[in-house]
Amino acid sequence: MKTLIVHAHPEPKSLNSSLKDLAVSTLESAGHEVRVSDLYAMNWKAVVDAADYGPAASNPLKVALDSGRAFETGALTPDVRAEQEKLLWADTVIFQFPLWWYTMPAILKGWVDRVFTYRFAYGVGEHSDTKYGERFGEGTLAGRRALLSVTVGGPESHYAARGINGPIDDLLFPIHHGILYYPGIEALPPFVLYGVDRMTDDDYRGVAAAWEQRLLTLESTEPIPFRRQNFGDYEIPSLHLKEGLEPEGRTGFGLHVRG
Amino acid sequence: MKTLIVHAHPEPKSLNSSLKDLAVSTLESAGHEVRVSDLYAMNWKAVVDAADYGPAASNPLKVALDSGRAFETGALTPDVRAEQEKLLWADTVIFQFPLWWYTMPAILKGWVDRVFTYRFAYGVGEHSDTKYGERFGEGTLAGRRALLSVTVGGPESHYAARGINGPIDDLLFPIHHGILYYPGIEALPPFVLYGVDRMTDDDYRGVAAAWEQRLLTLESTEPIPFRRQNFGDYEIPSLHLKEGLEPEGRTGFGLHVRG
Repeated sequence: MKTLIVHAHPEPKSLNSSLKDLAVSTLESAGHEVRVSDLYAMNWKAVVDAADYGPAASNPLKVALDSGRAFETGALTPDVRAEQEKLLWADTVIFQFPLWWYTMPAILKGWVDRVFTYRFAYGVGEHSDTKYGERFGEGTLAGRRALLSVTVGGPESHYAARGINGPIDDLLFPIHHGILYYPGIEALPPFVLYGVDRMTDDDYRGVAAAWEQRLLTLESTEPIPFRRQNFGDYEIPSLHLKEGLEPEGRTGFGLHVRG
Repeated sequence: MKTLIVHAHPEPKSLNSSLKDLAVSTLESAGHEVRVSDLYAMNWKAVVDAADYGPAASNPLKVALDSGRAFETGALTPDVRAEQEKLLWADTVIFQFPLWWYTMPAILKGWVDRVFTYRFAYGVGEHSDTKYGERFGEGTLAGRRALLSVTVGGPESHYAARGINGPIDDLLFPIHHGILYYPGIEALPPFVLYGVDRMTDDDYRGVAAAWEQRLLTLESTEPIPFRRQNFGDYEIPSLHLKEGLEPEGRTGFGLHVRG
């Protein structure tokens, strides 16, 4: 595999950084190529602004259109171009981050906001009676797979089907489906550690073994079976799931996973 | 009302900025007090790091514990303390932002990550057989109400119950429930504009009228009826919704809204 690890934690001695380091050593020892985007170490600029799009940015700024023109003319900043190049190089992407306020830290959201430009990650493909662009299973990054490795302070029960925080699969759906699957990346079932604020050294040994096991079986892991947009499951252009396709009783985000 | 507007768009001539400006003028004309945190204009630092917590930050950094100690000792940076003070001053908070990759822009997530510190927005209240801290309906910010004003590029049908992006209420649930309701803020039904990339000047006149109407009726608007944590609906400490409380057929995030 050619694996890109995108890592988002400010403390090099944190659990997140240990998991990132373990991923690098485990994958390299198994003969895989690994590149790391350690966003804090890179002092990653988290905020989209006109400076991202070079001197040709329009005034007033149009984020989508300007990002697309800058992408197409090679005018994106070198930091963004480097991340796009890493994504095109990789066949596998691992995101390592703590769940902060039920989603990714700002620095990682800023990586998505800046790297996933128009004409690269969206605004791709033709619109017709049978296609609504290349999205959700098609797109620039099709053929790649990604894994979220997420640490969570609270206990697992709070993220269960009836848990007060909402089910973890639903909390991660906007990332799995909306960020990854949209430009074509298949999302693997996530690696989630709960109760990490109370983790002991003994606990960590078990966690490390489980993480190594996930890493060494990535190639044979089946992705979450999201429905592809342009292959008959959705009305076009409303993009409503066609009547009768959902498994009984399934609603909301769950509609978009094949039964 | 005492209204804080937290605004997150880089372009002062954007639709988002126009809506923010209209909110200021409409509310002030109606006799309300308004303060604005224009995050791009403030050059808001989006990224949590050790510098947020003053010279007493521990090494290795512990984000939750260090943020709580810095809060309790007054060692948080002045920018963060100013935002906490504004939240305590306000009875109403409006968040104005574009939906980027199905959630808020990084600069606004960074406002949450940095301002909502331990001991301020979480880690508050006692744990007992009948309480699991002050969360979800109780907490430091109880008594306040908030409104998300969100612009969306795509059409409304894609965000409907069967739409491919998932229902807008579910996409916003981690913000309404996980970020706002957690420290006690009641979330009002959001003001969402769809298809904004194709909006004309004529469209804008209708939008502006609808926005003014929402603003002038905020005080009489009923919040989303999320279930309070510590008042009998949840098992403690698992925080599972008790059996039989959910309206028939409702699952996932919807369990946490009263029927």
